[in-house]
Parts: sequence; C-alpha cells; structure tokens
Amino acid sequence: MTRPSGRMPDELRKIELQINVNKHAEGSCFIKCGDTHVLCTATVEEKVPMWLKNAGHGWVTAEYGMLPRATGTRVDREAKKGQSGRTQEIQRLIGRALRAGVNLKAIDGLQIKIDCDVIQADGGTRTASVTGGFVALYLACQKLLRSGKIKTMPIQQMVAAVSCGICGGVPVLDLDYTEDSNAGTDANFVMTDKNTLIEVQGTAEHGAFTPDELTQLMNLAQKGIQELITKQKEVLSI
Amino acid sequence: MTRPSGRMPDELRKIELQINVNKHAEGSCFIKCGDTHVLCTATVEEKVPMWLKNAGHGWVTAEYGMLPRATGTRVDREAKKGQSGRTQEIQRLIGRALRAGVNLKAIDGLQIKIDCDVIQADGGTRTASVTGGFVALYLACQKLLRSGKIKTMPIQQMVAAVSCGICGGVPVLDLDYTEDSNAGTDANFVMTDKNTLIEVQGTAEHGAFTPDELTQLMNLAQKGIQELITKQKEVLSI
Amino acid sequence: MTRPSGRMPDELRKIELQINVNKHAEGSCFIKCGDTHVLCTATVEEKVPMWLKNAGHGWVTAEYGMLPRATGTRVDREAKKGQSGRTQEIQRLIGRALRAGVNLKAIDGLQIKIDCDVIQADGGTRTASVTGGFVALYLACQKLLRSGKIKTMPIQQMVAAVSCGICGGVPVLDLDYTEDSNAGTDANFVMTDKNTLIEVQGTAEHGAFTPDELTQLMNLAQKGIQELITKQKEVLSI
Amino acid sequence: MTRPSGRMPDELRKIELQINVNKHAEGSCFIKCGDTHVLCTATVEEKVPMWLKNAGHGWVTAEYGMLPRATGTRVDREAKKGQSGRTQEIQRLIGRALRAGVNLKAIDGLQIKIDCDVIQADGGTRTASVTGGFVALYLACQKLLRSGKIKTMPIQQMVAAVSCGICGGVPVLDLDYTEDSNAGTDANFVMTDKNTLIEVQGTAEHGAFTPDELTQLMNLAQKGIQELITKQKEVLSI
Amino acid sequence: MTRPSGRMPDELRKIELQINVNKHAEGSCFIKCGDTHVLCTATVEEKVPMWLKNAGHGWVTAEYGMLPRATGTRVDREAKKGQSGRTQEIQRLIGRALRAGVNLKAIDGLQIKIDCDVIQADGGTRTASVTGGFVALYLACQKLLRSGKIKTMPIQQMVAAVSCGICGGVPVLDLDYTEDSNAGTDANFVMTDKNTLIEVQGTAEHGAFTPDELTQLMNLAQKGIQELITKQKEVLSI
Amino acid sequence: MTRPSGRMPDELRKIELQINVNKHAEGSCFIKCGDTHVLCTATVEEKVPMWLKNAGHGWVTAEYGMLPRATGTRVDREAKKGQSGRTQEIQRLIGRALRAGVNLKAIDGLQIKIDCDVIQADGGTRTASVTGGFVALYLACQKLLRSGKIKTMPIQQMVAAVSCGICGGVPVLDLDYTEDSNAGTDANFVMTDKNTLIEVQGTAEHGAFTPDELTQLMNLAQKGIQELITKQKEVLSI
Repeated sequence: MTRPSGRMPDELRKIELQINVNKHAEGSCFIKCGDTHVLCTATVEEKVPMWLKNAGHGWVTAEYGMLPRATGTRVDREAKKGQSGRTQEIQRLIGRALRAGVNLKAIDGLQIKIDCDVIQADGGTRTASVTGGFVALYLACQKLLRSGKIKTMPIQQMVAAVSCGICGGVPVLDLDYTEDSNAGTDANFVMTDKNTLIEVQGTAEHGAFTPDELTQLMNLAQKGIQELITKQKEVLSI
Repeated sequence: MTRPSGRMPDELRKIELQINVNKHAEGSCFIKCGDTHVLCTATVEEKVPMWLKNAGHGWVTAEYGMLPRATGTRVDREAKKGQSGRTQEIQRLIGRALRAGVNLKAIDGLQIKIDCDVIQADGGTRTASVTGGFVALYLACQKLLRSGKIKTMPIQQMVAAVSCGICGGVPVLDLDYTEDSNAGTDANFVMTDKNTLIEVQGTAEHGAFTPDELTQLMNLAQKGIQELITKQKEVLSI
Repeated sequence: MTRPSGRMPDELRKIELQINVNKHAEGSCFIKCGDTHVLCTATVEEKVPMWLKNAGHGWVTAEYGMLPRATGTRVDREAKKGQSGRTQEIQRLIGRALRAGVNLKAIDGLQIKIDCDVIQADGGTRTASVTGGFVALYLACQKLLRSGKIKTMPIQQMVAAVSCGICGGVPVLDLDYTEDSNAGTDANFVMTDKNTLIEVQGTAEHGAFTPDELTQLMNLAQKGIQELITKQKEVLSI
Repeated sequence: MTRPSGRMPDELRKIELQINVNKHAEGSCFIKCGDTHVLCTATVEEKVPMWLKNAGHGWVTAEYGMLPRATGTRVDREAKKGQSGRTQEIQRLIGRALRAGVNLKAIDGLQIKIDCDVIQADGGTRTASVTGGFVALYLACQKLLRSGKIKTMPIQQMVAAVSCGICGGVPVLDLDYTEDSNAGTDANFVMTDKNTLIEVQGTAEHGAFTPDELTQLMNLAQKGIQELITKQKEVLSI
Repeated sequence: MTRPSGRMPDELRKIELQINVNKHAEGSCFIKCGDTHVLCTATVEEKVPMWLKNAGHGWVTAEYGMLPRATGTRVDREAKKGQSGRTQEIQRLIGRALRAGVNLKAIDGLQIKIDCDVIQADGGTRTASVTGGFVALYLACQKLLRSGKIKTMPIQQMVAAVSCGICGGVPVLDLDYTEDSNAGTDANFVMTDKNTLIEVQGTAEHGAFTPDELTQLMNLAQKGIQELITKQKEVLSI
Repeated sequence: MTRPSGRMPDELRKIELQINVNKHAEGSCFIKCGDTHVLCTATVEEKVPMWLKNAGHGWVTAEYGMLPRATGTRVDREAKKGQSGRTQEIQRLIGRALRAGVNLKAIDGLQIKIDCDVIQADGGTRTASVTGGFVALYLACQKLLRSGKIKTMPIQQMVAAVSCGICGGVPVLDLDYTEDSNAGTDANFVMTDKNTLIEVQGTAEHGAFTPDELTQLMNLAQKGIQELITKQKEVLSI
C-alpha cells in the first residue's frame, strides 16, 4: 500500500509552527500540518466565568471556527446559522485537552481563551488546533509570568494531538483529508510529553475495529505526538 | 476500595428493559440502569433526508433529551434555550453507534429516528440510550420486515454501550453519578456482539491515564457489554 | 350516539395518579387519564424571579413539553426549533391554574416550578397537566412545611381541570383524541373543590355554540372535576 | 360603584371605525375603542400554506403586534427578541375568531392575512383586533368578489369581540386598562350577529368566579357585541 | 423630463408633521411625506446603557420598524424572523443622525429612545424617520427641561434628512418609491440648520456617478432640508 | 500636524496583495494595508439565488467576518451570537461595490461569493475588503473564462476603496485605527478606474462637516484609489 501523499505509514506531514503572528493577542501560533493551516490566538481576560467565582482557580477555554472557504466546497458561515454540533464538539475537546496541561490554580482570577480558526483545511483540523493552541497558550502564560501577574509558570506538561486511522487495512499516522474520507476507522489522540493519554476518541466509520487495532493506532500516535512536542519545544526555545 | 453502591468493580447496575411501552411508536424500549431511566422510541419515516436522495440506502439517526428535573438540580428546558453542545455531541454519538448495527441498504428509502429521552438520570445516560435505543431500533426493523416494507432484516450485529472509569485508582464498570463525578478517568465504549469496537471515548478528567489503564477499562467494558447484549436478546426473544 | 370508547357522556376516562415517582424532585406525580400520560415534577428554588424581588410573596410557574413521539405522528423536538405558540399558551394556562390554588404570601422568597412532560398523548394533555401538576405542587408544599422552610401550608384550595365538548350534537365529558378531533365545540375548565371556576376556555372549532350549550358543558365539567379532586385527595391521603 | 371613566356598567367605550386607511392593503380598518387604537390590514395571497395544498379550501390567518410605545411603559421590540407567548396566544385567538365568520371553501386557493398592529393601547387590544380585523377581512372579500377572483361572498356571519370583567364586585362591559388591571375576573367573548359564541376565555386573576357570574358577563358581552356589529355594518354600508 | 408626481426637480413632497399624537410617549410626531407615513415616539429612560456607566453623558438611540403591509407587497413580520440587515443599517443611521443634534452631556444619566415605525411606505422612510424623529426628540427634551430633570436644553442644532437621486439623467429632490426604484444614483443626506452635513450616503444602483453629480445632489438636499427644518420649527413653535 | 504613523496627509499605508493563497478557492487574495490584513476568497456556485431564477443574469455577493482576536480587545465570535448590524451593513456595502464592476449578464446562471475575513484589524477593514475582494473576484472570473464556462470577461471596470477623514482639522487619506478613533469626520469611498464614484459614506462622528470638506476628502480618495487600482493591475498582470 502507498499513501496518497507518498508518506510512510508512521510519517507525519510537514509541520511548521510560526509564533507571535498577531500583533494584538497575548500569544499566537500559526500551525501548518501539510495543507491544514490553523491560526491560534490566546486572549487573557482578568476575570473568570460567573460559575467559577471564588473557586480558587482560573480557567482555560477554546473556541473553534472555520473560514467558509477553508474547504473544497464552501460551507455556510456559522455567524449566519449558529455553531453546528460538530463545531461545539470540537471546541469542547480542544478546551479539555489544553486544560490538562495547565495548573489552573496558578492562574486564579484569570481566564485564557484560545481561538483556533482554520484558514485552510486538509484533514486533522482539531488535532492541529490542539497542538498549535497549546503553543499560543504557553506563550500567553509566559507573558503573564514575565509581567508579574502570576507567580509560577502554570504549564505542568506539554500537550499535543494527532489523528491515526486504518486505511486499506493499514494503520497510518496523521491522516490528510483524502485518507480521512476513506478510513474504516479513525481515532484522535491527545497525549503529553510523559507519554500519557489525555483523550482518545476512536470511531468505526465502516464496520468495526478490534482492541488490537486500537493498540496499534495508539502506538503510532505516541510516536507522532512526541515528534510534535519536540517541534513545540523548538519553537518555544525550551 | 468499596464502590458507593457496594457493587464489585466488574459488576453492572441492575438492568431492566421493557419493550412496547409507547402505543404510537414503531418500536420502543424503556431502559433502567439502576436509577438512570431512559425512554427510547423508534419512528419510521418513509422518506430519507434531502442530502441522501438517490444514495441507494436509508438512514438511522438519534435525538437525545433530558427532562428538566431528571437531575438533582433542575436544568433549564432546551426548548427555551436551544440544544447545548453536550446534547448535540451525545446524540451524534448515539446515531453513529446505532447505524453501525444496521445494513443501511436494506432500509433504502426509509429513515428511522430514535428518540432517547432521559426520564431520570444517575450517570451513564448516553450509554443507556445506545443500549435501549438499539432495542427500539430492532423492534422497528422487525415491524418493517413483517409488514413487507423491507425484504431482509437490516440488523447485522447487536450494539450496546457502557461506561468505565478509574475511581480511587481502581478500574470499575458502569459508573453511577457519584462515581462519574469523582472518576479521574472516564471512558465510554460502544461494542458489538462480536466483541469489536464501534466507538471509544476516553477522557482524563484530572491528570492523565496510561495506555495500560485504557486496556484495563476496555476489558471491563467487553465483559459488561456482553452481559447487556444478553439482556437485549432475552427481551427481544432472539 | 355511542362514544368511541364506549363511555357514558358524563364518564371520565380511567384515572391513575402515582406519586413520588422521581428520586430528585421535591414533589412528583405521574398521571394517566386513559392513554394520556403526563409526568409532573415540582422543583423548589430558594429565590424568586427578578421582577418579584421584595414583592412580599413567592411564585408558582409551570412549563410544558411533549416527547417527540408522544403522538401518532412524530413532532419535531422543540429543543431544535423553539417552543411553539401552542406550548407557550398551554404552559401559561397551567401556571395560572396552579397559582389559583396557592397562597403566594406563604411561600415568600421561594419559587416552585412545575414541569409537565407528556410521555404519551391521547387528548386532554393540558388538563391532565393541571390535575397532576397540582398534586406535585401539593407534595412540594408539604415537604417545605415539614422541613420548616415555610410556616403554614400554602395550599388554599384544590384545583383540577378537564375538557368537555359537543360531539355529534351531544355534550360529553373528558374528550380523548378521537373525540377532540371531531368535536364541534371544545372547552377546557379549571375548577376548585368549592365548585368555583378558575378558568374557562371554550372554542367553536366548526360553527358556533349557544350560551345554553356552554352551561351544559360547565355542568359536566363540575361533575368530572369533583371526581378528579376526590382522586387527588385519596392519593395525597387528605 | 363608579367606573373610572364614568361609564355605566353596560356601556361600551366610544367606538370609531375608519376604513380604507392604507393605500396598499386589499382591505383596512383603523379601530378606536376609547384610547385603544389598532390598525388592521388585510392582505390577499394567491396561494395557500403548504399544509393546505389541495384541501379544497382557503385560509384566513392573523398576526398581532404592538408598537414599542403603545403602552405606558415602553416594551422591547419583538423584532429584537422574538414573539412572546402572549403575542402568539393573541394572534392564534384572532385567527380562530376571524375564520369562524368565513366559508373557507369560497376562498379556495387563497390565503387572507389580517395584520393587527396596536398603535396605542388602553386595554382590550385583542378584542378590538377581532372587531376591526373582521372589517378589514370583509373589505378584502368584497374586493375579491368584485374582481371576479371568487364567485360568492365568503362571509357567512359577522364576528366581533369584547371583554367583560368583575370590578369591585360589579360585572362591567368593555374594560379599559385601569379596570383590567384591577378586575378580579376578566373574560373575553367572541360572538356572531346570531348571538352565538365563537370563543370564550374567562380567567380568575384573583380568587375564583362562580358559574352565575360567568352567565352575567356573557349577558353583558352579548349586548356589547351586538352594538359593535351594528357599527361594523354601518361602516360597511350593509 | 416630468416626474411621475408632476413635481419640479427641486420640489419636496407635501409634508405634514403632527405632534403629541401618542398619549403615553414623552414626545411624539407623526410625519407624512406624501404617502410615506412614519410614527415617531420618544421614550425617556432614567438610566443609561451598561457600557456608558459613569461616562459623564447620556445617550440617544433609535429603532426602526415597518408594519408588514406598509408596502405594496406584504413583508414578513420581523418579530417572526428577526431584524434584517437593512433594518439594522437604517436604525443605526437614524441614531447617529439624531445624536448629532444633541449635547449628550446635558442629558447625563438619561437615555432617550426614538421609535420610528413606518405605517405606510412610499420611498424615503429613513429620511422621514430622521426628520420626524428629531421633532419627537425635541419634544421629549423640552418636557425634561420643564420638569426640571435637566438644567439646559440639550438640542444644539436642528437636524433633518432627505433623499435625492438622478432619474432619467436629471438630479431630483425627495424621491418617491417609483423614482427610487428607477434611479441610477440615490443619495441620502442628513444636515443641520447651519447647512453642515451630518451624514451622506450615495450609491450608484446602476453604473456610477461623477463627483460633479454628487455636488448637484448635495445642493438639492441643502434646499430641501432647509425647508424641512422650517416645517419642524413651525410645528415646534420655535 | 503629524500623523501617528508619520505618513503624509495624502499617503496610503504600505499595500501588499498576494494572490492564489488558498488551494480550494476559485480566486483568492490576501491584502495587507499596513496592519490591516484581510483574506478574500471567491467561490463560484453554478446556480443563482432563488429570487433571481430566470432573471437573465447572475449574481455577486459578499460576506464579511472578523476573527475574534483580530482587534486589540477580543470580540465575541459571531457564530455564537449572530451577525451584528455592523457586520451586515459592511457586507452589504462590499457586495454593492463589487457588483458595480461586473457585467452580471456575462455570468448568467452563476453566483460568485466573495468571503472577506479580517485576520488582523487596524482600521479600514471594509475598504481593504473591497480592494482585495475585487482581486479575488477578478481571478475567479478569469478562471471561468479560461474554463469556457462563460464567453466574455464580466469585469467592466476596476473597483477599489479607501477611507479618508478629518483628523485634527486636516483631511487625510487611509486612516489607521488610531486616526479613525479620533477623526471628527470619516468617509469611505468606492471608486472605479474611470474616476467615477460607486459609493460614498461620510459621517460626522463629532460635530458636522461642510460640503467643502467633503470635496477635499473626495479628492484625496481619488488619488488613493488610483494608486490602489494600479497595485491591483500589477498583481493581476493587466
């Protein structure tokens, strides 16, 4: 079997992370995973959501959007029709993933919002959002620390994400849109630099998959995510 | 460690499935998993959604709701504020799970809608909806077959679901609300009577989990789901 | 003339009231009027609506919903399309009816919300909601009194409701769906155990009705409502 | 007892009906009942609603609105917040009332929409809308007949409406806002020129009312409505 | 060229301004510009919008609406479908125009809302709303001054508006609907009694226009607006 | 007076136009006017809007959005709260402006949608959208022509836009955010390569402006727009 892109089964797409791309945001990262391009910005707000008043810790949340023509066929603007179930599901996932890397007590009184906007899509937008969003979040935390608004660095572990799937019977890493559309099984993994899992979501699009296959996908994801975390650290110079 | 309910780590809650509880629906099942009670009804519509016109197959979809006082604290009615992201995420999951058990070509021209309404909640409402909803779906398919509207039984495998989690460091099966609120890791599994996976969703609510822990949860789920499928078969007399 | 159900013109459907059916609610009643089944739950909130601040009295309100397949033909979920005018009209009626039985000063600082959810419909869902909802409300008031949160029982009179109509020229009591669809005139009555009226809503669906006919319907309603109130008192042991 | 306006208990407010006040509408009537002013316009559409296709008859419907400053305290514009339950309830009542006067078979293929917009409010806006709206409807029917688009006059009986109430223990006709706010019981009647009832809606705002009191209100309404119908006929020259 | 109405190119339609037409509003003006009729009411609220707290000045805002049958073809009620982009654009324009005439510091702590509701439309509804709305605003300010709630008259200059356009190659003043539909270029001007501009909005509906043509339209507008301001002053007796 | 940026009064910001930046769109242009960055994509749909069926010509429309952190203070995502009046006003302006450059008959049966999404904002986002959007539109038309789907080039004149304003008493070209916030008068101009006007919108934010001042702003705009059109032609190689 050959992948449409010619990649090896355990090979990531070309990854680029550009930081500080937005003059207004407290942190920002433009992530390119092949032809999937996501702009991630971090906004620090000096208040927490109502339901968190006096809880003794701050909050990290995420929002996700796609430009109408990020995809092959134009999609109606959500500003006109409201956020779809898919969008809400994705941004809830990104928020949970990012929070897992942060000691929320260290940002008590603050909320950090990560906006992930897909400029161009070619599969894997939600995992790219986690990986790029975490960099924007890291930068915002660093800025808070430097400004003296917080006392300790709230980042407690690095977080990144990737999708894997079974294409033509072969487990492969980092699906692009063509692979994603044809995969029998598709799974998204969010992991830390300690090789532990934050989230796994596996779905049989056609048929079903065995526990063994899930283990194989998990192994691929582990390899890919450690590479992504290496990239994150490089661009953050840590 | 003792579970709040006194159950063994690999013990399901008391399960009851009552069928044909609604005089109007083409299939119905009232499922009780301990104090979690969900009414599942199947509606057969003799047309498919617009985007499926002439696709050569039918469709199965699900909707999920909760009565306002199904929970300890009353929740505002979604009819007044719109469906939350959580609701949409859950009903998308139920729909995918149910479709995995059906040969959609065998219901060409038809759509079957499964409504899962939580009458009382005590954890695990989405997995109870899958298990009970599949029974309602089965009954509706049976009725279609008997009426001659379809030629072959569209059910190709049985589908059921359960949640597992790590509570106080111990992997346990079928979380109730108290356990769910305190679990460090929480995972929902949808599986078939062939012991294959349709969907897995694991989340670290606090900290992270190891690949090994995921495997342990998967083993518990396998045991629980086979018991649930036995119950489904009993009530369906198959 | 024979009624489709074989009932006498002044005969109610079989009525069943089950109380304390929900483990979370402060009061609950599942009412069956023939094949019309409504689950009524009472929620006590220890605050009043904004517009009632410092008014010297509490509030009772009601919400009404129908499961999508409560009816012969499935109805789209209001969570997806918002509450219809019909739903809002019905829940306003239920709220007014229930408040008429309560001394609101006796629940100053509190709001009691009665949720009436139709599990299965066969005509007369709004009147069943009033009759069952009043039982849930009574139970919640009793619980408040016992807990010492209020000083005196706020219930000042019993309230129940029934529909009547003119079918085939004959005034009949407690219409089921078949009769309701064919009635020339249809009227809903809310009355007290003192034989006084709280609300009357009579509508000519076809043609018109005379003042005399309205009087005949009112007499039937009086008889039916006193029977319903007897049932309420039995189940409440008062 | 003296009424705030000095009127006799069975005395209507000063009624004025101006017809053909809108250059675009197929029929129009500006009705003044004392300080309650409602502009009613009729629009004829040469198609019926989707759900009435091939039913063999046409349709009459009504919509109701209030200018934001029609009332003593400005009310937020419904265009900004959506139609309230009260608005929907009122426009459903007006629609039923108007349809009762029309032979819908005579307008097969057509829909007539009556818009009732309250320019200034002083109580009784819904009953004024019925009375004025019926005149606009009559004019539109007349125009259809004259143009040859329909063969026979669809108006089968005249329809008008009025409110009555018990104020300070005395039954009175045609409540203005001051009376309406203080009435213990309030009832709206829609009747025909044949002294028959189309709709009655009686509500105890405080306490309850007896069947006898309802009869007294009905008698007042009968008197008032016949006077209103005389005014309608005068302005229509019939 | 002859205008459809027979007017001269620089001739306004017949203008009528009736004041104090609403018994509830703090100021009101019913403006007729030919067959365009707009009811303008002013409401004084003794609080400012949230975002203006402690800003040291009050606020003036406007809302715009159209009765469904104000136009030749009935338009769906915005209460049912929400405010269109056109409506929001118009009411933002009216608000800006009115504020330009007011010293907001003189109404610190107050908000004045001007509602402009089109009763009948024949072109130029937004400019009529500005001209009539300013009269309602003036009256409300006068009332505030007389009641002692403010110390100085906040009106600092008179404001009125008119549209001009190029029809059949000829620049004309105050377009009616027929002209507006056929104009190649259409421009709205808001000006003061000092001959200065508050707002100009010129649009080429077909083709384009030259800077010279814009100047010609501006000259026509100046003439028309001074006539409108004369009318405003007459009716206000200033 | 010195401008904050040090520019001359008649000096544009640094302008960059990058074309074909999106792999999916039929035409695309990323425009940078100083720190204002807008991504414009063109989508060709092979059908016209419903209301244009059989009108003998196609359509061009525009949509406008802003990423939440395009601005100094994060703005709530319109997908969550709906499009604001400001957004709708802007996208209506862009649509009118672009249509003015196109012979719609030459694209009969087609609709071209231009999406203008602000990636970073520093004043003048609507005029940048017109200038960049026109380039994306041009490219889409070119592609249609080359593919043989249309017979003649539909672009009949070049269109670009710029804002001008009076800052500190001095008329200046191409306001950035700092200038825009402080300008007494602010005007947007849309013009063609023939020096004619498509649209002018001038507003006095404080005080008022004279007809002479409008003329001065128009002269500045003319100069700036011809420079912008030169840039457009360069990047399009025409």
